[in-house]
Amino acid sequence: MKAKITLKDIARELEVSISTVSKALKNSEEISRDTKEKIQAFAKLYNYRPNNIAISLKNKRTKNIGVVIPDIVHHFFTTVIRGIEKYANARGYNVIVCSSDESFDREVINMEMLANGSIDGFIMSLSSETQKKNDYNHLKEVTEQGIPVVLVDRITNEIECDKVVIDDQLGAYMAAKKMIDQGRKKIGIITTADYLSVSRARTEGYKKALMEHGIEVDESRMLKLSSMDMDEELIKDFFDSTDLDAVLCVNEIFAVFSMRLAQKRGLRIPEDMSFIGFTDGFLSQYAYPSLTVVAQHGQKMGEISAQMLIDKVESEAEEETYQTKILEPTLVVRDSTIN
Amino acid sequence: MKAKITLKDIARELEVSISTVSKALKNSEEISRDTKEKIQAFAKLYNYRPNNIAISLKNKRTKNIGVVIPDIVHHFFTTVIRGIEKYANARGYNVIVCSSDESFDREVINMEMLANGSIDGFIMSLSSETQKKNDYNHLKEVTEQGIPVVLVDRITNEIECDKVVIDDQLGAYMAAKKMIDQGRKKIGIITTADYLSVSRARTEGYKKALMEHGIEVDESRMLKLSSMDMDEELIKDFFDSTDLDAVLCVNEIFAVFSMRLAQKRGLRIPEDMSFIGFTDGFLSQYAYPSLTVVAQHGQKMGEISAQMLIDKVESEAEEETYQTKILEPTLVVRDSTIN
Repeated sequence: MKAKITLKDIARELEVSISTVSKALKNSEEISRDTKEKIQAFAKLYNYRPNNIAISLKNKRTKNIGVVIPDIVHHFFTTVIRGIEKYANARGYNVIVCSSDESFDREVINMEMLANGSIDGFIMSLSSETQKKNDYNHLKEVTEQGIPVVLVDRITNEIECDKVVIDDQLGAYMAAKKMIDQGRKKIGIITTADYLSVSRARTEGYKKALMEHGIEVDESRMLKLSSMDMDEELIKDFFDSTDLDAVLCVNEIFAVFSMRLAQKRGLRIPEDMSFIGFTDGFLSQYAYPSLTVVAQHGQKMGEISAQMLIDKVESEAEEETYQTKILEPTLVVRDSTIN
Repeated sequence: MKAKITLKDIARELEVSISTVSKALKNSEEISRDTKEKIQAFAKLYNYRPNNIAISLKNKRTKNIGVVIPDIVHHFFTTVIRGIEKYANARGYNVIVCSSDESFDREVINMEMLANGSIDGFIMSLSSETQKKNDYNHLKEVTEQGIPVVLVDRITNEIECDKVVIDDQLGAYMAAKKMIDQGRKKIGIITTADYLSVSRARTEGYKKALMEHGIEVDESRMLKLSSMDMDEELIKDFFDSTDLDAVLCVNEIFAVFSMRLAQKRGLRIPEDMSFIGFTDGFLSQYAYPSLTVVAQHGQKMGEISAQMLIDKVESEAEEETYQTKILEPTLVVRDSTIN
């Protein structure tokens, strides 16, 4: 059997991006007529058929679940995977994990690879680049083929499917309110750019708590890092230029890293500056001082995603209905805030 | 097409273990004649054919690599995966990850699932249960089918294949020697049972350093935990019953956890008790005091494994030769030992 040609092959051959190929094959207005004609002709020549997957899947259960996450070296996502595995294994399903490494192209490649009949459905958390591009054609293609998808944590409203999130806005609100209740007035936030759905929601929750308590929202107290990587210089500049007595961070690595930088400046934690992070991993428990966090219940999120997906895979219903499950976060108070 | 019957299906149907099925199909002396006949008859009836995989694989490259690791919530393994992804992606391969969750059965199920033609080769680190059982039939089956396998970190001499390890014995030796050089006389070790290849090698390195420096090896100073889970009571008992001035731990979680228990007893670290762990993760960097560790270079191990595997996949050579690459560990000195 001749190997099936993929979006990736077309993109490489014609030296365009995978996104362009995907859009051209859908006849998108965003792509020039010239490019579209070239791509469509090439796809036809090599017999590219996105829909041959759906046909084979209808008749065959693999009992495998495909999981595509943005990052494997990240405590939160590994606990989501553990939850998925726990639930799926108990129902007789295997779990296959691929990491997009925050890359749009890799997310597309991984989905295309798994959608070749290896799996019964997807559980996904979007890469930061995908959210930045705001391009979800690869997801649309899969759902249109009848492959069930559950989005978890990093989701988009552009795709109709089941979704599992925690109430990120509430989590950040609870954290900021805790700081306000302890008398903090100059509360900063270290977050990432707004295209990341969870960062946007957390930033909203932070602003809401401040406004409700009559504290002015000061843009200079909001540091938005451009990626998930820690930028030591930017954080140092932020501490240099801003008067702060508390900092909320959108993940535990940002929090522990920033806390250490603050300590190096001679600040006492929590007396001079209190810290709260998101994600309740080993790092938060064993940092010094131990970190107060908004627990996201990753394992629970994984279990619920797996349940929603498997129910959908095994459902005989003709009519599809979708739900979004919103879990409540929990504030775990430790030594980085005043007790 | 009728779904192919798997080892797992046979095991479930006949209510025996997967290991028993695998051995029975290989006509192992370990299995009673009655059981063997029953299993072989069932396999024949349902047309179980392990070797149909090899045939399809010979003609087809998937450009996918299957990775089976014991635990996904473990910094070391996630860095190995990151290294594999980095190298494999650069050479145009995708990476599929499955976790055995330290279970023999799940390891077998995952390998069987991936070996159905989804991948060109395996990179594996053995589950603790597999090493305990000392049963490698599932690996033999795969290598006999001509699917290349690279074992990384947790390996076995029972299987002829490429292997990548760090010199665990040397790592533990370096750590124990560091403690001895700093005047410590009562050096303990917190490790896991000897069936785990890496723990066994680390325990040997620890003993070697002690013996070479005229310090008696005292079994009461060696705590062997039965699993990878932390057992707070056992560690407390160990600290209660043993006079120690230094502790070597076979991973960073054991080290940071034990260090915290020692601090709760009022011990100063490193003055009263120094600590060294294995694995150089965020946890070691941000623990208090920061943890001196034996760095295992997980990402490098992943890159080398991927290189060895892809070279083997793409090789046209008739004669197979295998190599074992042994990387040197590095001691990263931080505040949990005297500087």
